[in-house]
Amino acid sequence: MASDPSLAKGTAFAELLLQGPEPPSLLDDLTGMFRKAFCLRGADKRLTLSVCAMSVLQGLFPILDWWKSYNLKFFRSDLMAGLTLASLSIPQSIGYATLAKLDPQYGLYTSVVPPLVYAVTGTSREIAIGPVAIVSLLLSSMIQKIVDPAVDPASYRKMVFTVTFLTGVFQFAFGLFRLGFLVDFLSHAAIVGFMGGAAIVIGLQQLKGLLGLDHFTNRTDVVSVTKAVWVSVHETGKKYKKLFWVSAIAPVLSVALSTLFVYVTRADEHGVKILQKVNSGINASSVKQIDLKGGYVAECAKIALVCAVIALTEAVAVGRSFSVIKGYCLDGNKEMVAMGFMNIAGSLSSCYVATGSFSRTAVNFAAGCKTAVSNIIMAATVMVALELLTKLLYYTPVSILASIILSALPGLINVQEVCFLWKVDKIDFLTCMGSFLGVLLGSVEIGLSVALGVSFAKIIIQSIRPQVEILGRLQGTDIFCSIKQYPVVCQTPTVLATRIETSFLCFVNASSVKEKIMGWVTDKGKAFRSVVLDMSNVVNMDTSGLAALKELHKELACLGIQVSFTDILRSSEMQICRPILSPCAENNRVQMAIARPGWQVTHKMKLARLIDGVGEGWFFLTVGEAVEACLANKAGNTLEFC
Amino acid sequence: MASDPSLAKGTAFAELLLQGPEPPSLLDDLTGMFRKAFCLRGADKRLTLSVCAMSVLQGLFPILDWWKSYNLKFFRSDLMAGLTLASLSIPQSIGYATLAKLDPQYGLYTSVVPPLVYAVTGTSREIAIGPVAIVSLLLSSMIQKIVDPAVDPASYRKMVFTVTFLTGVFQFAFGLFRLGFLVDFLSHAAIVGFMGGAAIVIGLQQLKGLLGLDHFTNRTDVVSVTKAVWVSVHETGKKYKKLFWVSAIAPVLSVALSTLFVYVTRADEHGVKILQKVNSGINASSVKQIDLKGGYVAECAKIALVCAVIALTEAVAVGRSFSVIKGYCLDGNKEMVAMGFMNIAGSLSSCYVATGSFSRTAVNFAAGCKTAVSNIIMAATVMVALELLTKLLYYTPVSILASIILSALPGLINVQEVCFLWKVDKIDFLTCMGSFLGVLLGSVEIGLSVALGVSFAKIIIQSIRPQVEILGRLQGTDIFCSIKQYPVVCQTPTVLATRIETSFLCFVNASSVKEKIMGWVTDKGKAFRSVVLDMSNVVNMDTSGLAALKELHKELACLGIQVSFTDILRSSEMQICRPILSPCAENNRVQMAIARPGWQVTHKMKLARLIDGVGEGWFFLTVGEAVEACLANKAGNTLEFC
Repeated sequence: MASDPSLAKGTAFAELLLQGPEPPSLLDDLTGMFRKAFCLRGADKRLTLSVCAMSVLQGLFPILDWWKSYNLKFFRSDLMAGLTLASLSIPQSIGYATLAKLDPQYGLYTSVVPPLVYAVTGTSREIAIGPVAIVSLLLSSMIQKIVDPAVDPASYRKMVFTVTFLTGVFQFAFGLFRLGFLVDFLSHAAIVGFMGGAAIVIGLQQLKGLLGLDHFTNRTDVVSVTKAVWVSVHETGKKYKKLFWVSAIAPVLSVALSTLFVYVTRADEHGVKILQKVNSGINASSVKQIDLKGGYVAECAKIALVCAVIALTEAVAVGRSFSVIKGYCLDGNKEMVAMGFMNIAGSLSSCYVATGSFSRTAVNFAAGCKTAVSNIIMAATVMVALELLTKLLYYTPVSILASIILSALPGLINVQEVCFLWKVDKIDFLTCMGSFLGVLLGSVEIGLSVALGVSFAKIIIQSIRPQVEILGRLQGTDIFCSIKQYPVVCQTPTVLATRIETSFLCFVNASSVKEKIMGWVTDKGKAFRSVVLDMSNVVNMDTSGLAALKELHKELACLGIQVSFTDILRSSEMQICRPILSPCAENNRVQMAIARPGWQVTHKMKLARLIDGVGEGWFFLTVGEAVEACLANKAGNTLEFC
Repeated sequence: MASDPSLAKGTAFAELLLQGPEPPSLLDDLTGMFRKAFCLRGADKRLTLSVCAMSVLQGLFPILDWWKSYNLKFFRSDLMAGLTLASLSIPQSIGYATLAKLDPQYGLYTSVVPPLVYAVTGTSREIAIGPVAIVSLLLSSMIQKIVDPAVDPASYRKMVFTVTFLTGVFQFAFGLFRLGFLVDFLSHAAIVGFMGGAAIVIGLQQLKGLLGLDHFTNRTDVVSVTKAVWVSVHETGKKYKKLFWVSAIAPVLSVALSTLFVYVTRADEHGVKILQKVNSGINASSVKQIDLKGGYVAECAKIALVCAVIALTEAVAVGRSFSVIKGYCLDGNKEMVAMGFMNIAGSLSSCYVATGSFSRTAVNFAAGCKTAVSNIIMAATVMVALELLTKLLYYTPVSILASIILSALPGLINVQEVCFLWKVDKIDFLTCMGSFLGVLLGSVEIGLSVALGVSFAKIIIQSIRPQVEILGRLQGTDIFCSIKQYPVVCQTPTVLATRIETSFLCFVNASSVKEKIMGWVTDKGKAFRSVVLDMSNVVNMDTSGLAALKELHKELACLGIQVSFTDILRSSEMQICRPILSPCAENNRVQMAIARPGWQVTHKMKLARLIDGVGEGWFFLTVGEAVEACLANKAGNTLEFC
């Protein structure tokens, strides 16, 4: 152990490794999260109270930030976009309200208050707020299990408003406590499958009503439906072209034409179902209809949580897609706070759960919107319609609303994305299909549970998979790479260089890692004298991981003594039966060296006295140094394991 | 882009990185696992049928391997150990049978057939097989919810045998299909807590019987119990010293003495409860009592699964602890197959679930056992006792059995281990406590569920934690380390070097990784021109991870255009509204470089065309090269993102 410069460098590195600062504890992490959750923008202690207050207000009402630079040119664009939006929103809102098993005017109410509140509190400039098909389906399918809207519409409405209020509260809480990552728990693949399944469920429901059928008896119906869906799916690709005007105007035109037709021909007397009276007047207060003390609050809360997450997922996804196109960053947590405000305000004014709709946002974007003022214009137009035009909807046939809903559904079935999932990640494809089939064949809750279950199982499975690789040296360099990924590298004879790939060495993978390494070492074809563990990937480990490392070290140290069962019997007579390991024959010990353990890992190894057990001299900053040291020290150090 | 040698090397490395072989697909992994599961030892195609058959037999019956080297000296040691074991087993078995709410002879039966079967099929040389406290408690507490043993003992027994049979089947299946890792799912910390809680539950039950109390009314009882437990816990440390003989002989001595005492004083006429008649004769067949077609098979299967996992966990842990001391490797899967055989055979011969007991194994070890023949000796002794000595147990007081059970319990309460958990890993401590309190305050199933739940939540939480670190260069080297763990490193100005720490970039952490990096880049105090992502830790990613990388790339590329909301409004007039990103001002783009992506990750990035998007020239094998390239190329490449 002379003054070898590489050895001196090695020692300096080992000191660096083993004597660094302590990592943050679990408590530090939690308090950090807590502080961040309540941290206001620019939490600089030198700011005065008024500046702080202004900062808080600007955080809550972003409109105070951008209205200063608003001009007439923007207003013109927003006006066009808002009117286009309104022409699409009015028929869709009425349709979605019937989907949610509410009277038509509630859909119109939901296109008034929530967009207004969002325009003042939200940050996305393209998003179009209002009722959407998926959430309407969610509400009706989950609430009707508790209260039947056909039997007791007043109680059903009360529950809807209660659920909407609680949805707003949940969304606000997620945003406030920066729990935005909870929304991430529904992975994109799961959402694609869920949306697709829900769209088909809605479609089949609407078709039954549209075609007046109880079930499909005629194969042609299925064929024609499939064909119609196929055509619509292809049409979806043309969303952004100039013909979008046609798709935006078409619904309101068809409503107008069909109403005129029914009025002229008096088709309602011949069996065509019509809307009949739609209450006029803008939103009435529904504060008294929110019931937080009744017997069903727990179920309402459960439904509200599901709606909150689905609504947020859709809104954040829509907002982000368009913000990326326009090139600005959207703060997910702020959006959630805005959504929360919007739904709380809506629940107090006869609205149900609203969120961002992808199809209407695309129309808004294509129509040239500049800011959220387009939502204000739309809300104002709907208000006018509610005051003056509801009488015109008397003769509107119900089937036209069904066809409007149907026309919006193909946009939810994203076949291209499903093909992408199949190509790139089979497990994500499985998540998508599980979610899709769960919704289609079971119920919305089953679909969501399957999606969540498969998503989390994915993480667990990833932890279980074989997590250790053999490394080889890239010739002429100090770079060690996996021999499977880079077949050109060459292994060092007598030194088994391995890398532990998992970032969390824990109870699910620790034993298999240890057994795999022992399997390689005891492979009779090779004669390894040392094992290098590259632990640079391992961020953290638990006590099972520590135990596996200790056992690995022990077993490597005593490798010379046991070869076969027969030998064991003879040699065991030499063993002194006590828990402290007796030193093994020098020429049979396999040395263990560890390269670049992570921060938490080093700290835990210190606490468990594993560093003393292995020997400080056997910790290195790079695999290259570890391999060099193993090649130099053939005999290995004396072990004192405790 | 002249012929710069470093650039040439960089290009060579990039080719190596991007043109390697394809990683194994999910299907390859699954077929590999399937093949390994059914692979026989030495599956060499050139072996003849007879050699194969011999290999299979030796795999199933390891006794064929070691009996050849057996000699008289071993037999002497095993005889001593076996007799010592029997003296401890007989009283304990009777006690545990009453714990399992069965008649005393069933405990003795369980000390006959299972040890014999194990000796022939198992590989551990120290393990002592028989009934144990925890499993007896599990059986009684779970089965009595279905059938009350006091009301219908015959049906209760039938269920016990059915559960034992199914337990054996599950254990055999786990071993056969190499599902040993499923047993790892109950982490060590969870087992420690579970055992401790179960020990206290058993202890309180026994004390009630022992002291004839319905509940503790006298504080002194609690104090004396606590004191007794404390003393016993300390005594546990002396397990391995020569006085173990005393602890081994003590139970049978106390049974003998107390029986004599009761017989002489006729204490049974004064209210002392005695065993009374214990059926003599060895195991009768119980094949007809196993009921797989009845109404309770599903519940039996559920109970059997829990028993199978707990019994396996205990046996494998015991077997491994002693095999490590003696210095040989125990194949967990083979042990499971042996356990399965043992319990299936036991269920057909009036035994209930048996497993390895830590306390008896320690006695076996300390008494100098050499092979599993000690189990054969013990079984033979118990058989003799069943035939000839059961009459002697007539006057044995029940309370002495309770005290024998109590004396075995402190060995299950591992306070030292709990302190170790607190010191090293707080989350493991939480798992332990959750499991402990779940069993103590709830039930065995609640304790297990809490243990499993916290264990898996641990993996999910580890995935969510902040997973990206800033790197700095260790002066004078090419080594880049985390600036938090190694405060001496220095960051390169204008280049933000980061490492993604998680091994699975997926839906739970992808967004937060992207937001964190964007947060660092947009930090107004610095002016970063490039971002290097060290992805050597990332083994795999899903489509959410891919999407996050794509968005990160897009946002970095367009970073120059957006600074504040006000600017956005003005500049958006210049934007052409289409999904393809327009090239951004040269002097504002932030370049992204990726270092050493893993195998699966590279493959997925290729499929998703992200490599083309970022540019092949921006992938490197080491962080050092990536940083050098960023410093050299200030302007960055033209982006063509699709």
